[in-house]
Amino acid sequence: MKIEILKENLKNGLNIVEKIVGKNLSLPILNNVLIDIEDSFVNLVSTDLETSIKIWILTKIIKKGKVVVPAKFLSSFVASLPNEKITMEAKGQDLYIECENLKTQIQGYNPEDFPIIPKFDDAEYLEVDSKKLCQSISQVVDIAFTSASRPEISGIYFNFSKNNIKVVATDSFRLAEKNIHLETPIKKEYSFILPQKPAREIMNILDGKEGTLKIYFSNNQVLFELPMAEVKHPQIQITSRLIDGEYPNYQDIIPNKFKTNVVLKRDEFLNQIKTASLFSGKVNEVKLIVNPEKNVVEVFSKSSDIGENKSSLSAKIEGEAVEVAFNYKFLVDGLLNIKSSEVTFDISKEDGPCLLKPVGDNNYIYMVMPIKSI
Amino acid sequence: MKIEILKENLKNGLNIVEKIVGKNLSLPILNNVLIDIEDSFVNLVSTDLETSIKIWILTKIIKKGKVVVPAKFLSSFVASLPNEKITMEAKGQDLYIECENLKTQIQGYNPEDFPIIPKFDDAEYLEVDSKKLCQSISQVVDIAFTSASRPEISGIYFNFSKNNIKVVATDSFRLAEKNIHLETPIKKEYSFILPQKPAREIMNILDGKEGTLKIYFSNNQVLFELPMAEVKHPQIQITSRLIDGEYPNYQDIIPNKFKTNVVLKRDEFLNQIKTASLFSGKVNEVKLIVNPEKNVVEVFSKSSDIGENKSSLSAKIEGEAVEVAFNYKFLVDGLLNIKSSEVTFDISKEDGPCLLKPVGDNNYIYMVMPIKSI
Repeated sequence: MKIEILKENLKNGLNIVEKIVGKNLSLPILNNVLIDIEDSFVNLVSTDLETSIKIWILTKIIKKGKVVVPAKFLSSFVASLPNEKITMEAKGQDLYIECENLKTQIQGYNPEDFPIIPKFDDAEYLEVDSKKLCQSISQVVDIAFTSASRPEISGIYFNFSKNNIKVVATDSFRLAEKNIHLETPIKKEYSFILPQKPAREIMNILDGKEGTLKIYFSNNQVLFELPMAEVKHPQIQITSRLIDGEYPNYQDIIPNKFKTNVVLKRDEFLNQIKTASLFSGKVNEVKLIVNPEKNVVEVFSKSSDIGENKSSLSAKIEGEAVEVAFNYKFLVDGLLNIKSSEVTFDISKEDGPCLLKPVGDNNYIYMVMPIKSI
Repeated sequence: MKIEILKENLKNGLNIVEKIVGKNLSLPILNNVLIDIEDSFVNLVSTDLETSIKIWILTKIIKKGKVVVPAKFLSSFVASLPNEKITMEAKGQDLYIECENLKTQIQGYNPEDFPIIPKFDDAEYLEVDSKKLCQSISQVVDIAFTSASRPEISGIYFNFSKNNIKVVATDSFRLAEKNIHLETPIKKEYSFILPQKPAREIMNILDGKEGTLKIYFSNNQVLFELPMAEVKHPQIQITSRLIDGEYPNYQDIIPNKFKTNVVLKRDEFLNQIKTASLFSGKVNEVKLIVNPEKNVVEVFSKSSDIGENKSSLSAKIEGEAVEVAFNYKFLVDGLLNIKSSEVTFDISKEDGPCLLKPVGDNNYIYMVMPIKSI
């Protein structure tokens, strides 16, 4: 293998593939990047066996071949180089790098030992806007909860049906659902549960990248592919295993009758919850006291060894007076996932699920359970 | 005590005094801030027994008195408040805070238990520009080395003599000296060793603040005082204990005869050292190969389990060809303390001290010892 490549292109590629490379002591081959050639492109490939990333960079190919070298090391090394053209050549298992004023040898591994990345030949696929999918994942992904006893809720649930995609996560105390409208309806219904870590990687890697993603399915694997403009090769492929199991039938527990409906300013609500959280003690309890007569919501918290705090929010309130207590973290998480200036907060009852929604956007709901007040 | 104060002023003050507040389990009173009144000013005071900080904020005083409350907690709480006027009142030991829509009680401690801050009545003092002093400390402070067996080198040495201040630090492998020129000569010679931590605090707290610092001395304490414009009260006082002992007579070991004198571009030198450091192995060794015939310095490093790297720098060289090896961290630290575009690097001999200096500035020297090459 021998190529000439711009430092900036190589650096950007390595920054992507190194994201899933850790420090694997039992399988050190996983700490490496596979550098390979396909037509006029160099491929960079990494895997942690659960997730794999493969990227294509158009560059000058002098000689075909492949090499496997430590990914994080190569990335740090390339980042330290001046912003110029780099020549990379494999000799034996080692990688030789030259650029202006510099000659380097990096010890490599046998490319035959690098794991094989799953293929998706002839698999079915769906298409979705990359930016919309990333934004949707970002609004739910932090809620999923890694649980050995309930693996199905430790992932993000994707449901494709007619002209809608649902992206859902829960930790059994709260649940977030985002809907993406599809211009072109799809004929079959698909669904899968993607583990939280690759969901985060997909969001981070594709963030800000425009284009129409192709999502391929096979039995227990999924592939997210971002195309490259005007060529048949993809730009990025991210493959992940899926979680086995049935996602809980959460639709049934979303309440549709409410004791009290509240409309609040999002920033003010978030800030007062944050202030109150300082006094919330070990159980993180913050109490909301909803007063429909005064159109005011009071936020109250108290800790025996710190002190107490009470603040008030003006609100539009319909329904009954009610007092309901929450783990403040759950309210903060929900509010951070919402960007609208106003939110609706609908309370079904003192010990029943409540719904937080952005005003003016019906595509997102955040359901949260109260805690028992002390 | 009862005052009205702007959130922003209180927040800025707390941000300063909380810098030396840790989580002291054996003396929990040290985790607090003392809030006290002096004329039309509120004082915020903190101490870790080695260093004390006292600041003055002009505000509306309604009633005198004092209160002691957790510093970091109060700082987080105030930061979370809206940007408005805050009313603070002491009742018993507790602090009551009110601002628009919010009422808070924070549990306090007995102000009599708060440590007494050393006073400097009638002490001698010197004056120095605040910005110049901070910049000088920043160029040496990281080099000092906390050592129980040699406490005198674990601090920053200040020497005031005629119209010059020397600010010096060493860890016995390298030494940095910065000279500040004084417009008005001083009559007596003074010197002291300030521990590293308060030196860092002074640098961070006074960074960007203009004015003429007064430095007061007593037996084993020093006080840095930043005045307030147009009033007799200071803006900030930082008091610290000093380190007992004689600072090493380092002047004698600074070489004045050199085998080779090299002039290099600072950024290029720094970048090549950083690249080479990746291959420097466990002893951090990077070798400089100085070639006066070609006017080139080669930077070489090699690690048995990673690979090797060689790069070259064009340089102006006078004197003999020489190969000399360094701990790369020591070179990087020195170069980071220098901002000029060119540096001189003077080599006395293969195993003797070398001098790094900014070109065009005679006020800073960085002396570094080579390591024995393997």
